[in-house]
Amino acid sequence: MSASFTLAEIAERCGAELQGDGSRRISGVETLDHAGADQISFFNHARYRKSLRETRAAAVILRPSDAADCPSNMLLTDNPYLVWARVTNCFAPLQVQEAGIHATASVDPNARIDAGAVVAAGVVIGAGAVIEANAYVGPNCVIGREVVLGQGSRLLASVVLMDRVRLGKNCLIHPGAVIGSDGFGLANDQGRWEKVAQLGSVVLGDNVEVGANTTIDRGAVRDTRIHDGVKLDNQIQVAHNVEIGENTAIAACTGISGSTRIGSGCTLAGGVGVVGHIELADGVHVSGASVVSRSLREPGVYTGGVLAMPHKVWQKNIARIKQLDSMARRLRALEKALAQSQDEQDSIKE
Amino acid sequence: MSASFTLAEIAERCGAELQGDGSRRISGVETLDHAGADQISFFNHARYRKSLRETRAAAVILRPSDAADCPSNMLLTDNPYLVWARVTNCFAPLQVQEAGIHATASVDPNARIDAGAVVAAGVVIGAGAVIEANAYVGPNCVIGREVVLGQGSRLLASVVLMDRVRLGKNCLIHPGAVIGSDGFGLANDQGRWEKVAQLGSVVLGDNVEVGANTTIDRGAVRDTRIHDGVKLDNQIQVAHNVEIGENTAIAACTGISGSTRIGSGCTLAGGVGVVGHIELADGVHVSGASVVSRSLREPGVYTGGVLAMPHKVWQKNIARIKQLDSMARRLRALEKALAQSQDEQDSIKE
Amino acid sequence: MSASFTLAEIAERCGAELQGDGSRRISGVETLDHAGADQISFFNHARYRKSLRETRAAAVILRPSDAADCPSNMLLTDNPYLVWARVTNCFAPLQVQEAGIHATASVDPNARIDAGAVVAAGVVIGAGAVIEANAYVGPNCVIGREVVLGQGSRLLASVVLMDRVRLGKNCLIHPGAVIGSDGFGLANDQGRWEKVAQLGSVVLGDNVEVGANTTIDRGAVRDTRIHDGVKLDNQIQVAHNVEIGENTAIAACTGISGSTRIGSGCTLAGGVGVVGHIELADGVHVSGASVVSRSLREPGVYTGGVLAMPHKVWQKNIARIKQLDSMARRLRALEKALAQSQDEQDSIKE
Repeated sequence: MSASFTLAEIAERCGAELQGDGSRRISGVETLDHAGADQISFFNHARYRKSLRETRAAAVILRPSDAADCPSNMLLTDNPYLVWARVTNCFAPLQVQEAGIHATASVDPNARIDAGAVVAAGVVIGAGAVIEANAYVGPNCVIGREVVLGQGSRLLASVVLMDRVRLGKNCLIHPGAVIGSDGFGLANDQGRWEKVAQLGSVVLGDNVEVGANTTIDRGAVRDTRIHDGVKLDNQIQVAHNVEIGENTAIAACTGISGSTRIGSGCTLAGGVGVVGHIELADGVHVSGASVVSRSLREPGVYTGGVLAMPHKVWQKNIARIKQLDSMARRLRALEKALAQSQDEQDSIKE
Repeated sequence: MSASFTLAEIAERCGAELQGDGSRRISGVETLDHAGADQISFFNHARYRKSLRETRAAAVILRPSDAADCPSNMLLTDNPYLVWARVTNCFAPLQVQEAGIHATASVDPNARIDAGAVVAAGVVIGAGAVIEANAYVGPNCVIGREVVLGQGSRLLASVVLMDRVRLGKNCLIHPGAVIGSDGFGLANDQGRWEKVAQLGSVVLGDNVEVGANTTIDRGAVRDTRIHDGVKLDNQIQVAHNVEIGENTAIAACTGISGSTRIGSGCTLAGGVGVVGHIELADGVHVSGASVVSRSLREPGVYTGGVLAMPHKVWQKNIARIKQLDSMARRLRALEKALAQSQDEQDSIKE
Repeated sequence: MSASFTLAEIAERCGAELQGDGSRRISGVETLDHAGADQISFFNHARYRKSLRETRAAAVILRPSDAADCPSNMLLTDNPYLVWARVTNCFAPLQVQEAGIHATASVDPNARIDAGAVVAAGVVIGAGAVIEANAYVGPNCVIGREVVLGQGSRLLASVVLMDRVRLGKNCLIHPGAVIGSDGFGLANDQGRWEKVAQLGSVVLGDNVEVGANTTIDRGAVRDTRIHDGVKLDNQIQVAHNVEIGENTAIAACTGISGSTRIGSGCTLAGGVGVVGHIELADGVHVSGASVVSRSLREPGVYTGGVLAMPHKVWQKNIARIKQLDSMARRLRALEKALAQSQDEQDSIKE
């Protein structure tokens, strides 16, 4: 983090309106509470207003409507978190790696590695693979046959791309991710399972991010498809034949079962489960740890589950779940009986 | 997928009854909707009947009872998915690897590698390991000491088998799987945790499949045991001392806690959790995302959880969960009160 | 497991009171049911009392109050499982690895490797990394730039530590774990996601254990912090900025969302989900598969979820969940109506 910019440079570069001393030197980012005289911070949520008022940051990114509470220089914007994203990237450590193939990498002679690509130590690349310009293949990654790694895409470390997987441009794949493993296709033969060969592949569009230890299975016949701009967090499981629409973001530990189609612009929070062979419309948002068991054809927020509570409260109440149907029936019976009793009472009164 | 067969050859090889032109040349598989004049498809579910009627496939695998809807050549069978499984394997890309040890592999001099085995680039194999005939150890796998990898078993890439793990014949282990990691055994000493050494190992039978990034812990004292024909999908966690019976299939993201025994012929759908120290009988089927908290001694289907619904519906109703016990008691009280009121009313009428 | 000790030596070493023949030779550990004449076992739970009475173990670790049921030599203690933990470590296979850097490892010339450290085959270590005395870097691990691996810490195999991650002393990291991957930070720009650079790192204290394929993300600005003595099982996801207090133990498949703080001495069972930006007090215990959606400020046990039951029972009852609010309202209405009816009846009787 040795980069340093003037505040005016940052405002210009990140698309915010400068208010204050543009010559102020900024050498890093910090939270409001910890920022010092050469650091920039951001304010995005009312609960941190006290921190804003007391910050010693050199500058703060915030909305014009919050400007009155800021004791410092400001970068004004309607989308502080977006400007913050851009500012953080100004200070991200430079990842300069010399282009070329490390001596310990094992590259098949029939693979085609662009001269501007980096192939790090311990990498293994199969026949027919194509590594495009400015692509980065980090230490100990394994790339199968006929894989295509698009321009500027990066596999950080120990990533496995199985045969024929294709990534677009500027994808970012975190360590331990496996793309193109076999889908879970099994036919039952009198109790024994026989494997269905998984003949499709996986295709990722451009600007896709895949988290650490996430797995994406290859399609059974056709390809599993992850469209442009999709962001997958860590430890997500994407089963065979799944399709995920553009700019959908999925948080960690979510599992998507086979042949399900998820629309574009969706968000799935952490730990979600989605059953197979269903469709989620564009703009569907699923709350954390919810299980989606049927197609959701309308955009909106969907939630399931019973959240944690003190154990004794849970124990006492959850035992009644198995009586719910009986309770509903008895409630209905009571309503009828009471109505009838009322009628009788009325007739007595008459 | 450059293989090609006559339809008669496929019928013969895959155990189906040919109806139509046996000389038809088949060069691949496809879905009903996309299959062309040299491709074979299959029909297994009523919802695709329209696709069946309109398919341009060279041939379709289906039940005799569906034959009337098929405009094409047919492979008739009572188990279309099983025949399909066999057909897909006819067209699976050949994985010819030259036997021998890659120059970049690090093999302990006291390991025994069969001359017909393949040890790929970047592999590390410890002392006393035995790699049997036709076994395949893919790129960057790590094999500990005294591991046994049975005949024809395949570790696809970046698989880790820790010391003394033993695999039977024809197992298939997908990338990133870890077998033989320590079980989570901890003794509490006045707030601090002391590790219980995990002295057992993991034993896999024959024809076991283990998915990408799945983990199977070694036993504490005795071995964790995965029996013949078990199929494990991706990102499954199998804790120490677990035993899984023959031909049980478990879908992705399922976790099985320590010392639990799962019978044979079971299926656990995705995202299931099973607590420790319990037993599931043969033929138990657990629905997706269900949590099994006690032994299931009868075969059958078991389900739990509250599925996702529109957030507002969930919010309004789930808040009542904590009132369930109170509601049940009040319902009972109402029933009593109404019965009493009825008695009184009856006595008034008399 | 070729080590062997007298029972007196074990009693001395593991802090238990010997009762019986101290010269008895012990060469291994076993369960009560399987232990033979040179093996030691332990008794910790009433349900194994029959096994205790019938054991052929050379000796049993148990509480003085259970001594009457033991037919064998005894190691008496108030904490049998703790003594057991120590005994198992007496018999753990020695992991003697010769210090030094394997010929196939790729170590940056600007990394500093202590002469007493082990760097195994296929390891890649970046510039500025520091590997302290007696540290062990197992096969195919990847260590980024400026990582610190403290004295005696062990990375077993295929572990990835990203740039600037710091581990204390005597940590144990199981295969496939990824520490320091990017947090899931995304700003939305009119539907498209822009990455927030993750500029913090991950700091682990001393004696931390991290399970196989577990992932711990680096902080966005400041560091993700895992304090001394924390034990993490397999396939856990720890998001950016999380802090986990001393001696907290977390079982497999649990996910902790960003910026959440978990106290010390907590236990989270398997498959738990914890939302972001909340706090769990010291001494909080969360039951398996529970979802924690708000701060838990009091120690105690917390539980959520609806456990698996026979499918038909579930189906019949769970359908009523969406009627819960209506049921609660109707119940209240009935209570009122009945009270009123009672009043009327009383007035009739008067």
